[in-house]
Parts: sequence; structure tokens; C-alpha cells
Amino acid sequence: MNPGDHPFFKVVEQRVSARNYRPDPVPQEHLELILNAARLAPNSGNQQACRYLVVKDREKLDELKEACIINREKVLRARGDEVPEESAIREHYDVVFSAPLYVLVLVDKTVRYKGYEQKDGSLAAAHIILAARALGYGTVFYTDSIPEDLCMEHLDIPERYSRTCIIPIGTPERWPEKSDRLPLSELVFLEKIA
Amino acid sequence: MNPGDHPFFKVVEQRVSARNYRPDPVPQEHLELILNAARLAPNSGNQQACRYLVVKDREKLDELKEACIINREKVLRARGDEVPEESAIREHYDVVFSAPLYVLVLVDKTVRYKGYEQKDGSLAAAHIILAARALGYGTVFYTDSIPEDLCMEHLDIPERYSRTCIIPIGTPERWPEKSDRLPLSELVFLEKIA
Repeated sequence: MNPGDHPFFKVVEQRVSARNYRPDPVPQEHLELILNAARLAPNSGNQQACRYLVVKDREKLDELKEACIINREKVLRARGDEVPEESAIREHYDVVFSAPLYVLVLVDKTVRYKGYEQKDGSLAAAHIILAARALGYGTVFYTDSIPEDLCMEHLDIPERYSRTCIIPIGTPERWPEKSDRLPLSELVFLEKIA
Repeated sequence: MNPGDHPFFKVVEQRVSARNYRPDPVPQEHLELILNAARLAPNSGNQQACRYLVVKDREKLDELKEACIINREKVLRARGDEVPEESAIREHYDVVFSAPLYVLVLVDKTVRYKGYEQKDGSLAAAHIILAARALGYGTVFYTDSIPEDLCMEHLDIPERYSRTCIIPIGTPERWPEKSDRLPLSELVFLEKIA
């Protein structure tokens, strides 16, 4: 086997950010495999700062969606940007909230090695995203599309946590095209930054 | 095949933080597979803020090691901690610098979506670490063991970059034991943080 034929690399190559999902549920067995991969991610001084909040409850997700729609209009107005029809914003958020489940990656800010827990959160998120893809699911690493403060409020998250991201997991309506990436030659430097 | 039998999960389960390496070089083909996995990691708004500095030059690594040894003693003194013999600090850093190569994950602070590039750096680092493990290599996500400011100075890194971490890649002298982790039941919450 050529080293690049290891199935790990196929998972990496097939991963794309998906936004539009079918409502089909993710079996508990799969969710546990995905979260266990997060559990085993590298972390600072083994402080295990990450916690995972799984949200499937449609009522809660709808409440969060409505809050996002109202917030989006406010943010655009405050910025002086053009505000689209409410229906367009709603349509956008119907897509954002189309997945059957969402995992919030939270980090405990009261841990020993402060500051590093933010890195731990992203390391765990990378494991979630790749594990989900290995099982055939789409994901996306959402931050401001679903603002942290709205999650804290509507999902009743204690203040000791900070949110790294919120990740929908589900079967994409269709797999999106991969985004263009710069070639390795522009990203990698040997011995010295040119 | 059971879903958990996907080779991705084996890579995750086998990954541990390794510190003590054999000097055997990492073939260029393997390094490129590893860095290409980083290139394909999720990132904010496809801004591609991450750059990878590969350092193999033993002279440069030795210079950085000497700087780390001097710095370590200073930090301990400043903290009022007990300062071990210089030989003990040196022995520690002989291990830290035992790998045949080091990848610094750098993020460009001048990108469009500021703040998010730090998350991008850790996502890319997770891909490097897993890709290396898939190919049989050990790694560890170093931050303060090899302080960022010493890397900036001794590896001549422009100020526009911030360092996410520095990752040795190589064949471990021996594979360390896995660190203990909390069970999933203490890390995962359904619908609400208990």
C-alpha cells in the first residue's frame, strides 16, 4: 500500500463544509463514535477542558433559529448594511438549522492552563468533523452564523463555559464542491519564511 | 464492516503525545502527505491563514534548544520556583529536540476574519497530528515548552505571524502510554448542561 492510500487521507480529502441537510437522524452509535474521537483528541496538560452539548430537540433549535433571525437583522442594521427581506434571512436560517443534530464544543474557562483550552476546543472539533466524515456525515464549523451569546442564553449554558463552535451533523442534501485551496508550495516554508 | 472499524478511528485511538524520538529522517513524500492534510483542514471563510514552517536544520534546532535552556532557568527563577541543575534542564531539552523535524503552525494575523485564524491553526494542527499517526509517526502539540517568542527570534519569523504550536514529527523511541481520559458520560450532555 502506498502511504497516501491510508483511508485517513481519503477522509481528509472528502471532507467539505456542508450546510444543507436531510432530516434523517444520526444513530446514537455513530454519535458516540464521533464524540469518542473528540474525547481522545490532544489537549493541554490533559486538563480535559472540553464538554460537548448535543442538541436534537426541534423546539429548542427552532427557538434558537428565531433568535438568530432577529439578531441577524439587528446586526445588519447596526452595521449600516443592506437588510434583506425577513423571508430571505429566514430562508438562510432554515438551511443553517436543517441538520438533525448539533454539537456545541464548549471549553471550561476555569481550568488550570488558561488560554490553552481554546486550542483544545478546536483540536476536539477537528476530530468531530473528521470522525463524522469517516462515517459518511457532513458537518461545518459554525461560529458567528449561530452567535455564541444566543446559544448561551437559549441553550442555558453556564457562564464557566466558552463556546469554540457549533457543529451540525447529518446527511447533506448534496455534497458541496470543495473550496479552492492554495497549493502547498505557497503554504510551506523550509527552514525560513521567504 | 462495523462503523467503528473504519481505520480513521484506529488512528485516533493510537495517537498519543510522544516526546522522545529516534533521529531517523521523515521522507519528503510523507511530510508532504502530512502537510497536505493540514492544507485541507476546515478554516474560517476559506481565508487560508495557516502557514507551515518546517525546520530540520540541526544547527538551528540546537540554537533554539540553547535559548530554551537559558529561558527555562530564567522563568523558574522569576517564578521563585526551585531551579534544577542546568544538566537536568539540558537533559529535558535534549528530549524535546530529539525529533528529526519540527513543523511550526503559524497563522497570519493580517487576514480578513481576525481572531478566527487561531481556531484555524489548531484545526490544521489536528490534521497534522492525525496524518502523522496514520503514517506511523509520533507528534506532540508543543506550546510553552518551546516558547513562541524564542521561535520568532531564532527562526526569524516575521511579526505578521502568530504561532499556534510547534510539532515534532518522527519515530518515537517508544510509544508512550495513553493518558487517562474521563468517560464520555462526564463529557457529553444531551439538550442541557446538567
